[in-house]
Amino acid sequence: MAKTTPRLHLEAELSPAHDIPLSREQGHYLTHVLRLVPGDAVEVFNGQEGAWLAYVADAGKKAVSIRCERRLADVTPPPDIDYLFAPLKHARLDYMVQKATELGVRRLRPVMTARTIAERVNLERMKANAIEAAEQCNLVFVPEVLDPVPLAKAIADWDPARRLVFCDETAAQANPLQSLAAIATPAAVLVGPEGGFTDEERRLLRAQPFVTAISLGPRILRADTVAIAALAVVQAAIGDWGARSGSAGRAP
Amino acid sequence: MAKTTPRLHLEAELSPAHDIPLSREQGHYLTHVLRLVPGDAVEVFNGQEGAWLAYVADAGKKAVSIRCERRLADVTPPPDIDYLFAPLKHARLDYMVQKATELGVRRLRPVMTARTIAERVNLERMKANAIEAAEQCNLVFVPEVLDPVPLAKAIADWDPARRLVFCDETAAQANPLQSLAAIATPAAVLVGPEGGFTDEERRLLRAQPFVTAISLGPRILRADTVAIAALAVVQAAIGDWGARSGSAGRAP
Repeated sequence: MAKTTPRLHLEAELSPAHDIPLSREQGHYLTHVLRLVPGDAVEVFNGQEGAWLAYVADAGKKAVSIRCERRLADVTPPPDIDYLFAPLKHARLDYMVQKATELGVRRLRPVMTARTIAERVNLERMKANAIEAAEQCNLVFVPEVLDPVPLAKAIADWDPARRLVFCDETAAQANPLQSLAAIATPAAVLVGPEGGFTDEERRLLRAQPFVTAISLGPRILRADTVAIAALAVVQAAIGDWGARSGSAGRAP
Repeated sequence: MAKTTPRLHLEAELSPAHDIPLSREQGHYLTHVLRLVPGDAVEVFNGQEGAWLAYVADAGKKAVSIRCERRLADVTPPPDIDYLFAPLKHARLDYMVQKATELGVRRLRPVMTARTIAERVNLERMKANAIEAAEQCNLVFVPEVLDPVPLAKAIADWDPARRLVFCDETAAQANPLQSLAAIATPAAVLVGPEGGFTDEERRLLRAQPFVTAISLGPRILRADTVAIAALAVVQAAIGDWGARSGSAGRAP
């Protein structure tokens, strides 16, 4: 398939049995922005039926539909790692959601902390950013976006079988790979707001038996950098970045 | 010192012996944007004399000067890791330079590859981005920005004592921590353009005895994500993110 075949995430069930009508936006995008005509190829995917090679079946003025032809890939969910984060503002939040999706997480959950600046969280925008990242990076799985939750409630309701990896800039500077060596998935990575966690929040987190605090080195990193750096070391240490042998990590 | 004390990178020699005149832009920033007046505190730093607490000495219409009072921190260079990268376009390049600076590298060097899209590299803009990241993230060290070089020439002139870590999306999927376990600083991390390296470039790189290829997992990552993810695992494995014991890495 040519590199330029467009990719679209569809909410609809994907099946070759019948034509699938597109939303107005997606129909407009294919026929007016990309100027596809009936018969042109498009790749469509969702989290249930995987990725399919399809073609434009009908490109009328009122409605555009596609028809699935052949399944290209199954859904291959990333490791069972959730990403919890204090929402940042605007562009940095968009970026962070896209990056977390690329790096491979199961769920995205905004967590409201004392120093969180964004007072309202636009979940639809987060979903759109996750879908855009999946479309661009050839992913079939799109992480679920969960409702925002206050940090205290997230901790009170926590499933202790899921390890909570917490990026603590005040942690005694141990190597994060060492801290991660003793844990495995299911896990979650928690990244605080630009101003960091309060001392009280840090104490609360550290008091939980399911929490692992990690340090990301001696330099101050911005919250969106922490997001990518933490997910990278977690994927390498306990995720699906290839098996490790003879060292402290474990195979996925 | 209050959190709101502004930080400025100065080219001038920092010494308490005499007033230091600021550039027109920096003077304008302090007195008109931040509205500082004589006696107000400002932190200044450079890569030679470290970070100093200073105060505005003179805030005339024509010139603004500061006076250093007390040294706050020495220059603490990051591990001897260079960051080599195919320049991206505009905002993504700005972002990548800022992130590499935050994560701690000694030098930034643009490398022109077959699929590099940016034809002209704005070194002054890169320097400004590195300085901005250092100012914001409380760093004292600012990485040097080196002239762009074609990939073939970078390899031909390479100092074999410096390990070149190359992010190869086609690498057999070994764990990057495993690949990094056998090496140490001085090192360099090389990240390709959005379209990746060509087969020929990959063969050239892999043929060099000083090259270590690493994989960053099964998902396609954008070039700016690769930059942060690669520098994070390299810092954790061979950089200064704390000593590791009992695993494959080595202490810094």
